Amino acid sequence: MANIQSFDELLTFAAKLWPKRIAVVNPRNEETFAALRDAMEQLHVHLFLAGDAEIIRTAMGSSPSITCAPAADPQTALALCIKAAGSGEADMLMKGSVDTGTLMKGVLEEKAGLRTGRLMSDVFVFEDARRHRLTMITDGGLNVAPTLKDKIDLILNAVQVAHALGNALPRVAILSATELVSKSVPSTMEAAEIAKMGARGEIPGCIVDGPFALDNAVDEEAAREKGITSPVAGQADILVMPTIEAANALAKSTTYFAGYRLGHVVVGARVPILIPSRADKSDAKLLSIAMGMMMDVGT
Amino acid sequence: MANIQSFDELLTFAAKLWPKRIAVVNPRNEETFAALRDAMEQLHVHLFLAGDAEIIRTAMGSSPSITCAPAADPQTALALCIKAAGSGEADMLMKGSVDTGTLMKGVLEEKAGLRTGRLMSDVFVFEDARRHRLTMITDGGLNVAPTLKDKIDLILNAVQVAHALGNALPRVAILSATELVSKSVPSTMEAAEIAKMGARGEIPGCIVDGPFALDNAVDEEAAREKGITSPVAGQADILVMPTIEAANALAKSTTYFAGYRLGHVVVGARVPILIPSRADKSDAKLLSIAMGMMMDVGT
Repeated sequence: MANIQSFDELLTFAAKLWPKRIAVVNPRNEETFAALRDAMEQLHVHLFLAGDAEIIRTAMGSSPSITCAPAADPQTALALCIKAAGSGEADMLMKGSVDTGTLMKGVLEEKAGLRTGRLMSDVFVFEDARRHRLTMITDGGLNVAPTLKDKIDLILNAVQVAHALGNALPRVAILSATELVSKSVPSTMEAAEIAKMGARGEIPGCIVDGPFALDNAVDEEAAREKGITSPVAGQADILVMPTIEAANALAKSTTYFAGYRLGHVVVGARVPILIPSRADKSDAKLLSIAMGMMMDVGT
Repeated sequence: MANIQSFDELLTFAAKLWPKRIAVVNPRNEETFAALRDAMEQLHVHLFLAGDAEIIRTAMGSSPSITCAPAADPQTALALCIKAAGSGEADMLMKGSVDTGTLMKGVLEEKAGLRTGRLMSDVFVFEDARRHRLTMITDGGLNVAPTLKDKIDLILNAVQVAHALGNALPRVAILSATELVSKSVPSTMEAAEIAKMGARGEIPGCIVDGPFALDNAVDEEAAREKGITSPVAGQADILVMPTIEAANALAKSTTYFAGYRLGHVVVGARVPILIPSRADKSDAKLLSIAMGMMMDVGT
């Protein structure tokens, strides 16, 4: 089992895995190709590239590690990639020039055989330099206003990532703007409900508590000052935000303000799904691929 | 008019102002007293301290700059402070050992004479080391789920802070999880509505645009990569978050992850109100007082 505390360790570990095959839907632009070349070189991945054969061959050349599946349009490329993932020919899916919504819709189709019955959600992982540990934020990418039931899936998906990285019992903080349960802040009441579900054993594989404000979730001194007694306070590995806006802003803040490294992976389908955005740095893309590679390790 | 780009400049400028008087509601603990002593020494403030006379005199000694107003309980201390602020005897209110809700309720009473007709909101200010400018986040402290109408007041309040610091035409970004207007993300539609109100001249004293994701609001390269043309993109001075949870987590992230300095002030009443929390560092308390001191400058 892995026991990965940093992104450098993640890259080292992933490079030693049995080669994984990534199915890429309609790769077209140079930044996608650059990320794929990095991943071949550093992580020894195999590629299943569905899209314009000429563009793909020009950009990637030919290699025994590359399968090129010609497809006339993004929809056909998507169908080919989904088939490859469904049949086990590919270990993960990655978005090229195709809309995230279209990609997700394809994955959710019954015939794709990729559904698990669990909601899919995006898990951001950043390296908290201050605390020397990989920390997760969810869901800043897919679920706009998750219900309580949705949030349980969000938690289970993030916990799966933590387990894959070797954190066997991650500490999950349900965040709000305050650590006090108050009727005037509905997200604190929902956090209390989820925390109690955790305490009753309804959310396996992790320790859940909430509500917390960010400071008392990630900073032990702040938690002490507020007098919070909880195994999660100040030590959270997973930050579950109430809305997509809160999760997205917090995740981007760790990159744009704190300068932390970041990767993210969509969990909840039978294979991990990567939805890199154009604003993602190449390092973020490589880290996301490495995380995707870990997802069947240690579970 | 001030033209303040950093917290060091803020402290230097505030120290040169004609002394301001702060009415403090029921100061009782050492960290509050320490912040007040700092403010007397560095910012030459005068103090109106309402509460337990013996505790106050023991902690603060006697000084021509200190008025001690004996009060048997927090409610009486609050009434004395509100009267001082209402009559012009005090220039700002500061919370000691009293509940924020109780303080705000007192301020909102008609007879206090402190209402302006505008909503009160908390404005966080942080020093964005990367961009060398003071940037504001609102509202992470008071308004849980502000409506569109509420958000206009939140903007006007933050704009008032920006003006007080010498930024005559602040750039206001209405944030969501994405810069695309989409029915599936309601906060993007509201952002579009507010942006158009700004374009039609309905929100004076600033340039408003949205929706933005955090990256394309504060990072010019990210804005360029997304092809966004806007005077606010990548250059936001004020970040208006959709909910209290998003604003609170983002503000705390700048301190706990990025290590930025931070202060905050409640605007919208006839005097600025300071609601320091126990987790605020002493630097944050001093910066908050300095910001409160600026609020009648340059407007």
